[in-house]
Amino acid sequence: MQKPLRIAIVGSGLVGSLLGIYLRKGGHTVHIYDRSPDIRTIQFSGRSINLAMSDRGWKALDGVGVGDEVRSIAIPMDKRAIHLKDKLNFQHYGKEGESIYSISRGTLNRKMIDLAEAAGAEFFFEQKIWDVSLAEATLHIGESERGEWKDVKYDMVFGADGAFSRIRHRMQRQSMFNYSQEFLNTGYKELNIPANPDGSHKLDKYSFHIWPRGEYMLIALPNLDGSFTCTLFMPFEGENSFAQLNDRQKVEAFFEKNFPDSIDVIPKLAEDFFKNPTSTLVTMKCYPWTYEDKVALIGDACHAIVPFYGQGMNAGFEDITILQEFIEQYGDDWKAIFEKYQDSRKPNADAIAELSYRNFMEMSSKTADEKFLLAKRIEKRFSEKHPDKWLPLYSRVTFSHRPYTEALAIGDKQKAIMDEVMLLPDIETIWDSAQVENKILELLR
Amino acid sequence: MQKPLRIAIVGSGLVGSLLGIYLRKGGHTVHIYDRSPDIRTIQFSGRSINLAMSDRGWKALDGVGVGDEVRSIAIPMDKRAIHLKDKLNFQHYGKEGESIYSISRGTLNRKMIDLAEAAGAEFFFEQKIWDVSLAEATLHIGESERGEWKDVKYDMVFGADGAFSRIRHRMQRQSMFNYSQEFLNTGYKELNIPANPDGSHKLDKYSFHIWPRGEYMLIALPNLDGSFTCTLFMPFEGENSFAQLNDRQKVEAFFEKNFPDSIDVIPKLAEDFFKNPTSTLVTMKCYPWTYEDKVALIGDACHAIVPFYGQGMNAGFEDITILQEFIEQYGDDWKAIFEKYQDSRKPNADAIAELSYRNFMEMSSKTADEKFLLAKRIEKRFSEKHPDKWLPLYSRVTFSHRPYTEALAIGDKQKAIMDEVMLLPDIETIWDSAQVENKILELLR
Repeated sequence: MQKPLRIAIVGSGLVGSLLGIYLRKGGHTVHIYDRSPDIRTIQFSGRSINLAMSDRGWKALDGVGVGDEVRSIAIPMDKRAIHLKDKLNFQHYGKEGESIYSISRGTLNRKMIDLAEAAGAEFFFEQKIWDVSLAEATLHIGESERGEWKDVKYDMVFGADGAFSRIRHRMQRQSMFNYSQEFLNTGYKELNIPANPDGSHKLDKYSFHIWPRGEYMLIALPNLDGSFTCTLFMPFEGENSFAQLNDRQKVEAFFEKNFPDSIDVIPKLAEDFFKNPTSTLVTMKCYPWTYEDKVALIGDACHAIVPFYGQGMNAGFEDITILQEFIEQYGDDWKAIFEKYQDSRKPNADAIAELSYRNFMEMSSKTADEKFLLAKRIEKRFSEKHPDKWLPLYSRVTFSHRPYTEALAIGDKQKAIMDEVMLLPDIETIWDSAQVENKILELLR
Repeated sequence: MQKPLRIAIVGSGLVGSLLGIYLRKGGHTVHIYDRSPDIRTIQFSGRSINLAMSDRGWKALDGVGVGDEVRSIAIPMDKRAIHLKDKLNFQHYGKEGESIYSISRGTLNRKMIDLAEAAGAEFFFEQKIWDVSLAEATLHIGESERGEWKDVKYDMVFGADGAFSRIRHRMQRQSMFNYSQEFLNTGYKELNIPANPDGSHKLDKYSFHIWPRGEYMLIALPNLDGSFTCTLFMPFEGENSFAQLNDRQKVEAFFEKNFPDSIDVIPKLAEDFFKNPTSTLVTMKCYPWTYEDKVALIGDACHAIVPFYGQGMNAGFEDITILQEFIEQYGDDWKAIFEKYQDSRKPNADAIAELSYRNFMEMSSKTADEKFLLAKRIEKRFSEKHPDKWLPLYSRVTFSHRPYTEALAIGDKQKAIMDEVMLLPDIETIWDSAQVENKILELLR
C-alpha cells in the first residue's frame, strides 16, 4: 500500500473518473474538479460520436471491478455494416465472439461519476481551474481568468482535462516542452436515427454502420433506447463540404443523392443538421507528460487523437492500466512511476495517433472497395489457419493488449505482404487456394 | 499609396524594427512595443550566436535604403575555416566575391532601432503586452499578467515578438490553429575570443570558424572590435554533454582534448562557461499566420528555426520583402495582402526549417569528412562550368532569392546525383575528369 496522498484530478470525464476510482482504491484522498456542471444534472449536448469500447478499455474497467456495470449499458457490435449506394455488405471485425461495444458518451460519463463517487472520490463541479503551480501542485481556481483566484494545494495533480487541457497549458510554457496540435480539414456533425415506435432499432442493432463515400462518410452506432447516434464526417470547405450544405434544401438533396437508404430513418435531418454544431478534429501530441512527482497528464490531455480507430477512450483507459502497473512496481517512488509511465506510454500514444489518422481513409474509402474487402478476407482466412503467424492489424489494436507501437510496425509489414499477394494473377478466383497461403508463408519468412 | 493606418508592431527586434521602417515609408503611423528595456541603453546579454547576413537579408535592407548603414557594421566571411584536431581546412562558400556577413545581434538591433526611429516609428519599451483582442486589433498592456491592464486600440497589429510570441499565443487558442514546437536535445553556450592587444583578430578575420566534432561543435564569428563570438553546440545529456561538464577542470580538460587550438585564444573559458546560460534551440511552426485584416505574425513569431543555416534573420527579413510586394500589388485590400502573404511564405518557412535542421549534421560532422569535401569540390567545379545547370544548395539558399521550397526540392535531387557520382571507382583521382562531368550531365537529364 502506498502512503496516502491528497490528490486532485482536473477533469470529470471518462479518464478522470476512472483514475479517481483507481486512486481511491489505492487509499488516497481524491478530489475531482470540472469547469462544467455535473453531467448527471443536465442534458448532454449533441456533439459526441458514440464510443466503441474494446479490450483495452474493458481491461482498465475490470481492473478495478467496474466492467460489468458498464457492460450493462453497452451494445456489442461484431461487424461493420457497409452501406453502398446500391447494396449492403457486412464485414466482421474479428473472430467469432469478438465485438466492440457501442456506448453513449453521456450515459457512460454519468455512470463513471456515480462509480467514482461510490468509491469515495469527491467531485467539485463548476470550478474553473485557470492555472496550476507545477512545483507546488497547487490549483488556481476562480470565476474568470482575470478575476479573483483561490489557491488549493495538493500533494499531486493529474490533468485529465482533455485536448485543450489547462494543466498542460501551464506545462507548455516551460522550456524544452515539445508540443503540436494539428486540425483536420474534416469536421463532424451529430445526427440521429430514432427508435421504431415499439422501441426496436431501425437498422441492424449489432452493427457499426458506415456509409463510405470517399472524402466524406456517415456512421451510425446503436443506443440502448433503440436509437442510433449518427455522425457525418465531411470537409469544411470545397466540393461536398459543410460550407456547401448551407440550406435545408441542399442538405436534403445531398442525403437523398448520396445516402439514399438513410432518408427514411433520419426524420429530423435538416433540423438536426442546423441545430447541432459542426465540430473539429484535432491530433495533439506533447512531451513530457509529467512534472517531477507533482503533476501528470493523462488521456486526451497528453494525446488527443482523431476518432477513426475508436481508440481515444481505450488509449486513455490503458494509460491508467499502465500507470497502475508502475504504482504496484514502484510503491511510493512517484518520481519513478511518473517517469516510467511517460516513457512507456509516449511511443504508444504516437503510434495510435498515426493509426487513427490513417484509418479515416480505410473507413471512408477502402471499405467501399472490392479489392480491399477481398484482401481482408484473405487475411482473415490465413489468420484463422495460422493464428500464431498472423494477427490482423485491426485485431491487434482492438482485441489485444499488445503495444500500439507493435501494431503499427507489424501492420506495415503485413500491408507490404498483402500488397504483393494482391498482385497475384487471378487473385479474385484463387484467393482461398493453397498457392496464396504458401505465398504468404513465404513472404513472412 | 495606401490609406494611412495606425499600426502596432509588438517586438522591437530585427524584424519588428525593419518592418517599422517599411510601414513608415508606406505612410502609416507605427508604434513599436517591447517588454524589455531599450537595448541601446543596456549591455546585451551573452546568449546570442552572431548573425550571418546573406542575400535575402540584404535585399530587404536595400529595399528601404538602409543596407549601407548595416554594411558598415558587418564583416564579410567568404569561407569556412574547418579546425580539425590536426589541421585547418578552408572551404569557400560560393563563387569569387560571394560572402556571408558576420554581425553582432546587439549592434545590429541598436542600429535598426535608430533607423526605425529616424524613419518616424515611435518606440514603447518596457511595455508588457499580455494579450490581444484579435478582431479589434487591441493590445492589453500592463505590469503583470494578473494585474491592471490598459487597452490600446489600433487598426492593425503585427506580432514580431519572436519564438515565444504573445500575439501568437492568443491565436493558438482559436480553433483550427495548427501549431508545433520541438526542442532539440542540443543546447548552446556563448564563449568569447578577445582581440589581440593591437585590436587585430586572433584567427582569420574573414572566415566562419568551425570545430566539427560530430555530436557537438564549436563555431566562431568575427566582430568589428577584433574579438570573435564563439558558440559551443552540445547535447544537454549523455556523453560529451553540458550535464557532464559540471566543473572548471572538466571544461578545461574537454577543450584541451577536443579543441586544442582554441585553448590559447579563449582565455576566460571556464569563467564564461559557468557565467553564460545554456540556451535551448527550438523549431516552431504554425498556421494560419494572420487574422482577417487585423493581425499578422512575422519572423520568428510564426517560423522559429534552428540556427544551422544562418537563415533565421534572413527568412524574417524576406517575409517583409514579400509582404511589401503584396502591399504594392493589392493596395488597401489588407485581407488579400495577408492571405497572399501567409500562403506564399508558409511553405517556404517549412522548407528552411527542414534545411536548417538538417544542416546541423552537415556542419558538425560532414565538414570533417574528406568524402564530403570532395563532393563539394566536384559540385563546385561542375557548377562553374555549367552555371545554368547546377546551383549548389548552399548558394541557392544563401546567395539567391529563389524560394526555399525550390532549394529543398532541387537540393534533394542534387544530393541523389552526387551520391551516385561518389560511387564511381577511383573518384578521388578522377574527380575533375570529363568522365565525372559527363556522368553528372547524364544524371541531370
